[in-house]
Formats: sequence, C-alpha cells, structure tokens
Amino acid sequence: MALTRRVFLTRLAATGGAAMAYDAMTGLGLLAAPASSRFDLQGHGHGVRVVVLGAGLAGLAIAYELNKLGYVCTVLEGRGRPGGRAHTIRRGTTSEEEGSSQTCAFDEGLYFNPGAMRIPHHHQTTLGYCRELGVPVEAFINYCDSTYLVQTKSARLAGERLRYREARTDLDGYIAELLAKALSQEELDLPLTLNDRDNLIEYLRRSGAITTDKSEYRGSTRRGYERPPSAGDDEGKRSDPLALSDLLGSRDGFYLQQDYDYQNSMLQVQGGTDRLPQAFAARLKDKVVYHAKVTAIRQRERGVSVRYEDRDGKIKTVDADYCACTIPLLVLAALDADFSGEFKAAIASATYSPAGKIGLQFKRRFWEEDDTIYGGHSSTDQDIAQIVYPSHGFHAKKGVLLGYYIMGQGGRPMGDKTPAERLEAALEQGSRIHPQYREEFETAFSVAWHRVPWNLGSWASFSGDARRDAYPRLLKPDGRVYLSGDHMSNWNAWMQGALDSGRLVATQIHTRAEQENQPRSTGA
Amino acid sequence: MALTRRVFLTRLAATGGAAMAYDAMTGLGLLAAPASSRFDLQGHGHGVRVVVLGAGLAGLAIAYELNKLGYVCTVLEGRGRPGGRAHTIRRGTTSEEEGSSQTCAFDEGLYFNPGAMRIPHHHQTTLGYCRELGVPVEAFINYCDSTYLVQTKSARLAGERLRYREARTDLDGYIAELLAKALSQEELDLPLTLNDRDNLIEYLRRSGAITTDKSEYRGSTRRGYERPPSAGDDEGKRSDPLALSDLLGSRDGFYLQQDYDYQNSMLQVQGGTDRLPQAFAARLKDKVVYHAKVTAIRQRERGVSVRYEDRDGKIKTVDADYCACTIPLLVLAALDADFSGEFKAAIASATYSPAGKIGLQFKRRFWEEDDTIYGGHSSTDQDIAQIVYPSHGFHAKKGVLLGYYIMGQGGRPMGDKTPAERLEAALEQGSRIHPQYREEFETAFSVAWHRVPWNLGSWASFSGDARRDAYPRLLKPDGRVYLSGDHMSNWNAWMQGALDSGRLVATQIHTRAEQENQPRSTGA
Repeated sequence: MALTRRVFLTRLAATGGAAMAYDAMTGLGLLAAPASSRFDLQGHGHGVRVVVLGAGLAGLAIAYELNKLGYVCTVLEGRGRPGGRAHTIRRGTTSEEEGSSQTCAFDEGLYFNPGAMRIPHHHQTTLGYCRELGVPVEAFINYCDSTYLVQTKSARLAGERLRYREARTDLDGYIAELLAKALSQEELDLPLTLNDRDNLIEYLRRSGAITTDKSEYRGSTRRGYERPPSAGDDEGKRSDPLALSDLLGSRDGFYLQQDYDYQNSMLQVQGGTDRLPQAFAARLKDKVVYHAKVTAIRQRERGVSVRYEDRDGKIKTVDADYCACTIPLLVLAALDADFSGEFKAAIASATYSPAGKIGLQFKRRFWEEDDTIYGGHSSTDQDIAQIVYPSHGFHAKKGVLLGYYIMGQGGRPMGDKTPAERLEAALEQGSRIHPQYREEFETAFSVAWHRVPWNLGSWASFSGDARRDAYPRLLKPDGRVYLSGDHMSNWNAWMQGALDSGRLVATQIHTRAEQENQPRSTGA
Repeated sequence: MALTRRVFLTRLAATGGAAMAYDAMTGLGLLAAPASSRFDLQGHGHGVRVVVLGAGLAGLAIAYELNKLGYVCTVLEGRGRPGGRAHTIRRGTTSEEEGSSQTCAFDEGLYFNPGAMRIPHHHQTTLGYCRELGVPVEAFINYCDSTYLVQTKSARLAGERLRYREARTDLDGYIAELLAKALSQEELDLPLTLNDRDNLIEYLRRSGAITTDKSEYRGSTRRGYERPPSAGDDEGKRSDPLALSDLLGSRDGFYLQQDYDYQNSMLQVQGGTDRLPQAFAARLKDKVVYHAKVTAIRQRERGVSVRYEDRDGKIKTVDADYCACTIPLLVLAALDADFSGEFKAAIASATYSPAGKIGLQFKRRFWEEDDTIYGGHSSTDQDIAQIVYPSHGFHAKKGVLLGYYIMGQGGRPMGDKTPAERLEAALEQGSRIHPQYREEFETAFSVAWHRVPWNLGSWASFSGDARRDAYPRLLKPDGRVYLSGDHMSNWNAWMQGALDSGRLVATQIHTRAEQENQPRSTGA
C-alpha cells in the first residue's frame, strides 16, 4: 500500500501526537498558514454527520469549522444559551447554581463576566475568531499601578494599604542597590567580565533608580507622591520608601509577577464575553438545540447515538457518524456512556477547581474618583483574594467591580455560602481596602462554578499523575467519540484552550472522515 | 488692618508660592475638596473682564472656570480651532506648518493625535475635566510585551528584533541569579539580617524565575515561546534566553523603565484628543474668537489692552481688567508687549523641544495579525526612535500607527525635511522592524511642531539655570498679565500641566479681583 497523505497523517497523529500532525499538515498545505490565527481546513465533509455535545466555545468552534466544510452538525446544549463559562451577567440574568434564586438587578448597561473575561494579546486563536466573526474587542487593563496590596496576616505592614507602584519601585530599588554594591566588592566570585559588570551597574542605576555615586536606593518619583506635582512652583511632595525588611516581611511583593498569560496587553470582548459565543451561534443558526439534556451515549461500529431530553421532557435521539464531546469531565463521569473501561477511568481521574466571582454594583466609581484606579486589581491575603476593577465604562455614574475572584480551593467555602453570606464577606473584607464600600454599595450577583450542574467546577485541575497517565488517553478518541474543551489543551481555563481544542478535534474528525468515508482513489 | 482671608491668601501666594496658597485655600474651604479632581472656586466675578490669549487647554480652563463665577471672558485664538497641541489629524486636516501643504487623506474614521495623546491614570485634573464635560475616555495601552526592541548601532545584537518580554524576562532573571548567588556567599558584606536574606532569595526566585536549587536563570515561559502551546499534547516550544553580555552590550534593556508618568494604566480621549478642547469650547460658545492673531499687549494702571488682527485683516482691540496669556514663550518673545525688562528677559530664556510625529495608514493591521501587537510601542536607536501602535480600532480592516514619535532634539532634523522625505525615512527605518511596511503602506501625514508658527516647538525645555532664575519670575504676573500653560507647571508637556496651570491662574486672578474690585466690607 502506497503511503497516501491521509494515511500518513493518521499514522502520525496516532504515533507522534497532535503537534507533529499539525506541523505536518501545515507543511503539506492542508492548513493554509502556520500562524495559529489562520485555520482553513481543505476538503469536503460530504454530509457526514457529527453530533457535538455542548455549545461552549469548543463545541461551537467544532461545529463552525466542520459546518464550513459541508458536514452536517447538530449541537446539543443543556442550557438555554450558548457559551458555557463564556458568559456575562446583566440585568435579569438568573443564577444557574443548584438551589439558588438570584436574579441580577444591575442597572441597564452594567455587567460582569463570571467566567472567561480577558484575552492575552498573544492568544491569536481567540482574537482570530473575534476578527473573523466581527466581535469587537477592547483593552482589558490587567495591571494598574495605583491598585492596592493589603496583607492582613503578614509579619510586617499588616493592614496597611500599599500601592502596587510603591512595592515594585522599592523592591526594584533595593535589589539594584544590593547587586550594585555586591558587584563592587572585589572578593565576589561572579561570572562577569569587567565590561559586563560596568554595563550591568549602569543598567541597575536606571532600573532601580539608585544613586550614581554610592548606588543607594533612596526612593524615587516612580513610587509616586504624597502630594502630586501641580502648576507653578508646586513640585509635589515625594513619598518615602518603605524599609526592605518591612516589604519582605509583608510578602506584598509576591503579588507582582507577570507571567506570560497576564503580560501587557490584554483584551476583552466589548460589551461582554458572551458576544463571542453568540456570534458563533448566530452562524450555526438552528444547528444548535438548546435545553437538550444529554442522557446517554451509545456507539455502534459505524456510528454514535446520543439520547437527550428536550425542553418538554421528551426523549430524543441523534444518530451521527462521529461525536465531539465537550461536556466537563465531572459531569461526563456521571453520564450513561458505553465508553471503554480505560477511557472511563481516565475521565474519572480529573478534578476541578471551584473558582467563583461576585459582581458588586456601586452608586459611584469611587475607585476612579477617589483612588485614581482605572482597571487592574487589588490583591490581598483575605478570602476575597482580589478586587478587579472594570476596564470599560470609565467615568460612568455607576460601576460594577469584582468584589472577589477566588481562583484556588478557597472558592469552595466561599461558594458554599449563601449569596447573602458571600456578599457580606465581600463587603466586610473589601472595606479594608475601600472604606467607601458600605456607603456606596447597591446590588450584587455571585457565581460559584462548582455549584452549577452543567459545570461542577470552574476548570479541570489534573494531578501530576493524572496529567501524565490519564490525559494522553483522553486525547485519543474512544471509538467515534472525541473529547474537546480547554481541559483538553495546554491553555486550561482560557478561551484559547477551548478554541484550539475545538480546531484540533475538527481536524481529527475531518482527517478520519476523509479516510473512512470517501471513495478510495489512491493507494492500494 | 485686620488680616482678611483674601489678604492672607494674596500675601501667602506672594511669599509662600502657589502650593502653600493652594493648601491654605483648601483648608479655608475656598476649594471644595483636597482631591485635585475637585475644583470649585467660591465667590463672584461681578462682570470683571478677563482676556485670555490662546484657546489651548490652559486658556480654555481659565475661561471656563472664571466664566462659571460671572467673569466676562474673551478668548483670542489665532487658529480656526481650539486645542492647540491637543489636536487630532483626520481626513481633510491640513498642515499648520509654515510652507507645508499636506492634506490628510486617511480613510474616514482613522486618526492620530500629533500632540497630546495619553493621560496617566493619576492625572486627575485632566480626567476630572473629561468626567465633568462628558468626554469619554478609554484605555491607552502604553506597553505591550510583544513589541520590539531593535538596536542598529549597538555592540551586540545589532539588527536583531527582540520582544520586550524577552529582554525584560532575561534581565530580571540574570539580576535575580547574580544577587541570589551573591547573597549566598558568606564573605559578602551587605546590610541584611539572615531572615531578610532568606525572604529576599525567595522573592528573587519568583521575580526572576530562577531555579530553587542553584539559583540559576535558564529562561522562563515569561519570555514567550518559539511555538506557543496549543491543544492536545502540544505544550509548545520554549524559547532560549539570550546571554547576559549580549543583552547588556545591546542596550535594549535601557528602554524598559516605567517612570511615574508612563505607568499602567494610561487613558486616551475616545475618538481623538481634540474632543476635550472641543467640549470646553462648546461651553464657552461665542466667548472664543477664532482667527484672532494677537499683535500687541498694552497695560494701563487698571487694565490691559490687547490688539489683534481678525480673519478679515481688521485690527481690533479688547480691553480687560486682567489678561491670562497662554501663548508659547518663543512666540510671545517676538510679540509687541510692554512687559518689564526683567519679565521679557525671563521669557527669552526659554527654549523649546522640536518633537514630531508621523501617522502612517496601512492597508491592514499587520502588527496585530502577524505580530500579536495590540498597542504599546517598539523602540529603536534609529532616528524614528519609536513606533507607536493604536490602542483603538483593534481588528479593523485598516489602521494608522505612529511611524515615528521623536521627543528629543532629533525631532529637528526630521522635521526640517519635506513631508515626503520624512515619510521615506519612516518607511525605510520602520521596515527594519516591520518588513511588511512597504507592501502595506497607503498614506501619511506628519507634524513638526517647531515649524508650526503658533507653537515654534513641542514643549518648553528650560535649562537648569532658566528653571532656577527665570521660571519663578514668569510665575508672577507682570502687572495684570498672568502667564499660563503646561510650561508654567511641573507637568510640562502634559495636558495636566496646562489644566493645572489654568486653574492656578484662574485662582490667582479671582483672588486678586476679589481684593481689588469688590466693596471693602471687611478690614480697615
């Protein structure tokens, strides 16, 4: 048998994995361009049927891409809306949590995104879809140097409000001072030429704002002013640096790192994250069936049957050639599916994080007016972890900020409280950062993802073992069922992960369908 | 004579300077609140006449504030528009440069700001006026970690395109490595307790992403990827760090500092900077006389006469009780005014910077599509100094970026070229950063502020001597003439400086007018 392109790719995907297959496809011209923002599968679906479980971003991307090629897609979505965690809370939104009865009472035009809210500028799959679908994006300000650091349990500076700029400038200054002094001590054994040493000292003077004579850090205008400069002879009053041992003892500096995911610039969907899934859904029209609760998955030799309960409680069945399943793994584990034992065990190995957010509407944007904070987030060692300020609607009369965004396990105890108790915790702890809170507060809405039955958590968190052993198994189809979602990517918890995974599964299904369903014109 | 509030303030302003007077006014309740965004002069102007020379932001703020109090203000503006350097270039805008005949041919909706373009989040006077006048603001992205550093004259890495994130991550990493290693050498004499030392090493591990065992910097995902992570098993391919001596020899790191003025977040006026002066002008209605070229200033014992040529060439005169003059000092030095010799000498001591910008319209936003750059600026040691990418209109079909923004003396030779020559320099040098330039370029518009007769420069740059000797003299009125503008502030070259100075002069005129012109009901 001659090695056809198709067979080659299928073998490569089986042995070398998706990355190698993707590279090969790019090289063979199956994909239009190497830039991840360009994605253009070649060929035709010839009416092959694909059932997609879940109308979150992964499922939408799969159906959207396969639909382009002439596949017949049906997307089953349990909720009455697309998007999953790519959701936006506005006036009238009701809670999806088990046993909760919150209805959002924000003023018209105010909103927050309880799940995905920001897009790194290098997430070109996400941004590429925004471009392709005509969904406007705008800047999301992830850092503002006027935001606060407030430690309550630290050895030093407990309860004090530091501005980000103060902690960062002082730490940079002291580090520059210490290294510059160390470099000038001749007995020091460091791998630097004299020329490098001089260049480095010059760099440290600039980066740390240290004195040119004695390499001392004595504060800097970069840390801000007690009274800012103004007109005429008012040069302002500079603020004094904190002591290094206070800073280190407070651990405020530990909040300053900028990992790749969060570097400048970041973007957000204008008007709310849900406009992106809505744009996908608008292209798919009646291919998305809402209020369709999947109850069983059955595979045959050449097909998949998915049973679901429709909005009237009637049981229906979709028969398809392939299935792309984006159902979160905790939910999938409890579903009646005839997966292999190995696949089921791998699904069961996943755990999920219990992240949650609360949106607080205030009568006025005191963080802008009183604190000169425009976007960014304040950080604290209290349960609320952070306060996130809106990057849009500046100077409007009112505003909604995130009173907490708890990413780790701390989300569980907070989410297990009643909405009223969550609010009280947010107000009580937030008041230590913004004393204006109680006076200005109007209304709130909170989401605890682990209590939403469609999700049971905010994002997958595989243990090291599960990532090593179970994850590779989940990447391979079980018969004709392919798993997809941000949990099947290296951008876990990001829209990019869901969309990249959707593209990968669309590619895998297309490659296999071309092999299995088309007339054999080549090879022997 | 009893010391009335008014007399006290006047004396304080004369002896202690504006800052002390401002503090005192705040304390006495003459100003509503200490926050600089609140400004609310108390009292009444009783029809006292004030002539304001120049409808830039300083002049507009003076007229706006005094108008509120019942002063009769006349603003004389040489141009046919308000705003001065708070200007926006759009389709149809014509050049104001001497001897230039550029007309902007950008597509509708595209624009750039040739002067003031960004607002630090802590500039509460500027932002306060935007709020008060209903001028929407949005994020201005000053740093994007994907932008480029390109040195062409350096000892190392000449001609290579580094991303900001690469230079910063590597420098932070090596600095952390070196200091951590130095701290672990016992003979080192540094003023740290053992506890501080351990805390600092832990902080360095995080801030520099160095290894926990040997404190070595071996690269980090923070510097980005050769191939980014994606779905399935694609963990991406990490990029390798540069050598420290290459980085230091290239001087790329010297572009990384974030001074107070430029820290996150920054903002811009939505739709173009000129909407702010337009909003002021709309409130002042027919109080602003356009095309009014001031030709002479004459003072009498109790008044000021200003002669000007109107748009038809007719000579007219405005008589007023006080004059606020915002005319740039180089222009003012050439004006027929009967100032004291001392005042004239002080005016003549000012020099101005020759900053300039060029806006380039491209067929597509290749910096977003190909380079994942959203806002921010690339830096280079070439004449163009920097390329500034737009923070608005993301994903639109076309875009305008700043092909150069030259802030120092390099602006003069560039601005002395013809517009066509400036463009050629921008394209030729810019192509070393973006090879797409020639292919995608459509049309350009450039501004050299030193060639605009209303300005003769971009911003004042006092020498150390002039700042010490002449500047304090210029802050005091000459008879009934008060100077105002960003050049009369400690926020030189910022809108905040113009507006703060406008408020200060409005306050000074009001304080004096209350003293000189009202019935003496108190004191003896």
